[in-house]
Amino acid sequence: MENFTAYNPTKLHFGKDVTDNLGKTIEKFGKKVLLVYGGGSIKNNGIYDKMIRQLKSVDARVFEYHGIKPNPIFEDVDTAAKLGRDNNVDVILAVGGGSVIDSAKIISITIPVKHSSWDFYKGKAEPKSAIPLISVLTLAATGTEMNPFAVLQNNNTKEKLGWGHKLLFNKHSFLDPQFTFSVPRNQTAYGIVDLIAHCLEAYFGGGEATLSDRFVFSIINEAIEYGPKLLDDPKNYELRAKIMYAATAALNGLTFNGRKYGDWGVHSIGHELSLLYDIPHGASLSIAYPAWMKHFSNIIPERIIKLGKNVFNTNTTEKTISAFESFFKSLNCPILCQDAGITKDKKPEIIKNMAVNNVSGANLKMTEKDHIEIVELIF
Amino acid sequence: MENFTAYNPTKLHFGKDVTDNLGKTIEKFGKKVLLVYGGGSIKNNGIYDKMIRQLKSVDARVFEYHGIKPNPIFEDVDTAAKLGRDNNVDVILAVGGGSVIDSAKIISITIPVKHSSWDFYKGKAEPKSAIPLISVLTLAATGTEMNPFAVLQNNNTKEKLGWGHKLLFNKHSFLDPQFTFSVPRNQTAYGIVDLIAHCLEAYFGGGEATLSDRFVFSIINEAIEYGPKLLDDPKNYELRAKIMYAATAALNGLTFNGRKYGDWGVHSIGHELSLLYDIPHGASLSIAYPAWMKHFSNIIPERIIKLGKNVFNTNTTEKTISAFESFFKSLNCPILCQDAGITKDKKPEIIKNMAVNNVSGANLKMTEKDHIEIVELIF
Repeated sequence: MENFTAYNPTKLHFGKDVTDNLGKTIEKFGKKVLLVYGGGSIKNNGIYDKMIRQLKSVDARVFEYHGIKPNPIFEDVDTAAKLGRDNNVDVILAVGGGSVIDSAKIISITIPVKHSSWDFYKGKAEPKSAIPLISVLTLAATGTEMNPFAVLQNNNTKEKLGWGHKLLFNKHSFLDPQFTFSVPRNQTAYGIVDLIAHCLEAYFGGGEATLSDRFVFSIINEAIEYGPKLLDDPKNYELRAKIMYAATAALNGLTFNGRKYGDWGVHSIGHELSLLYDIPHGASLSIAYPAWMKHFSNIIPERIIKLGKNVFNTNTTEKTISAFESFFKSLNCPILCQDAGITKDKKPEIIKNMAVNNVSGANLKMTEKDHIEIVELIF
Repeated sequence: MENFTAYNPTKLHFGKDVTDNLGKTIEKFGKKVLLVYGGGSIKNNGIYDKMIRQLKSVDARVFEYHGIKPNPIFEDVDTAAKLGRDNNVDVILAVGGGSVIDSAKIISITIPVKHSSWDFYKGKAEPKSAIPLISVLTLAATGTEMNPFAVLQNNNTKEKLGWGHKLLFNKHSFLDPQFTFSVPRNQTAYGIVDLIAHCLEAYFGGGEATLSDRFVFSIINEAIEYGPKLLDDPKNYELRAKIMYAATAALNGLTFNGRKYGDWGVHSIGHELSLLYDIPHGASLSIAYPAWMKHFSNIIPERIIKLGKNVFNTNTTEKTISAFESFFKSLNCPILCQDAGITKDKKPEIIKNMAVNNVSGANLKMTEKDHIEIVELIF
């Protein structure tokens, strides 16, 4: 087991109607609230109205920033941060999925400074303080609700980067599974892939930590048992709750304890696909993971076999990878680029961008030769 | 799944030599340090000297309180709190196992007040503040290093009570598996029983939370796979690390998420045995758990069978309970009172004390009839 530090100060409020007293929690941080959300789906499903009622109940003064994109860009973060800065907000309320909460995390550290949020990602600036952030999650997938990470992209430079800092923990995260009832089938499926991928990034990271491995299998097994049932029964509270909590547990630190680091090579590949062709994050992962496992199966056969044994009761690398492919297919998620509408002529572009952005894992490094071979496998 | 709040602000530093910069962490809270420890075993294994070196390295002024008992009493807490109060300490450093850290938690909230620590346990006072607490764990067992609970006893009134409060979280917990190398075989075994019992208290609590159930099985399976190996190889770092982390994970909140509460009936029974006959906590649990499961096996057969299936690959309540008995015996832990030197003539005394102290679980309530039947089963 590797040395590790476990620290997660986010207070998670999970369950039915947990936002019924949200106003009281917000009020503790102040009255001037920056409300951040995405494309407006929360206006259709009643969540927006509920949030506004909560904010009004404590006489909050609300500044709204909406329009955060599914693959969020730093320009939105900068604009929202300016709004928060100009109005001297006390607290941020982020309502949405991973893209909204990730953006809000970076808004929280950009409000106190004068430079662009992207400078944090390029190592040109270090955050010194953060406006308190409270989140209400509406999509079970990324785990951002209980971790210090945020992914942001820069369309000008064609970069999509993950980054973490201890100031990025949400103060409070509210997770009401009912808020995910209206998530469409495909987005629900992508969320299931995403949470499994997070477990795998930990599992294929540096070092075998036996208990953390067991936690990985626990979360993946939960997703495999209940994920498909949820797709058939999207307003089932228990199923929504199981998948929502699994997604949080998949990336709140638990599965990383006792390892040097996660690998994140597959996310790195996936980010290229999302960046170039704007495909959903989960879809990029269901394409990239099988290919990545095939490519590295000679290097880490025991890890893949141990995984298969504990998840699919398989006993070879081939059967394990094939079982993951079948599972992703059963969720209607793409396992090849062409399933997601990316045509074969894009291969050179993908390979080129992988080289430019140094696509690699922390544990299993990738060279350009690896890029070329993996790109062959994703088509 | 039941609604739940997950919150754990303790910063856990786990691994080899993690106390090498302990002084720097202590210094952040101040220079006047109350050092709390137990019977002095840390003076024999070099840990005391290491702690003093760390404290000297930052010119700390140290006030020592030692002599905390394995089953800790409130009088020691009160005396230590007076020492801390009189000297206006800035921070507490607790070095030891569960009894020392539990005591230090209560010392931390007793220093700022004028009444006895026992008043907190009897609901006569509510803590308002706490002196920051840093712990260095030397025994893998109770999980107190990363939770807000503490057990204390009152020999005058023959009460041993568990109690929790959000002010009781350690600020920092340092866990170096090397610090447990010298823990004797029997104490190591009791720690393994204790961590399994904590998982079971969660598992038999209110509500089936499927992912938390999987985490329970993960931790118990880790203990069952590596616990016996550790007893045969007590200076094996990896094995000490696995059991140490399993003990932390068993009671840091993880296994309780999605349940109404833990049951704690077996701990309640065990506390009576420790209180009356001063037997180690872990020994009281290896006696109480099989009896309790036998007694309630008609009420919760599915839960016991699900447990057995996932831990011992058994398929009946009888086989599951018998497998737990065999496992505890393989660790040389008592499964009957007479194994721990408690003679049959003590039955009436135990039954009487169980009634006086309202021994019961939160989920599976116990009446005096249950007490009588369970006491028959522990002999």
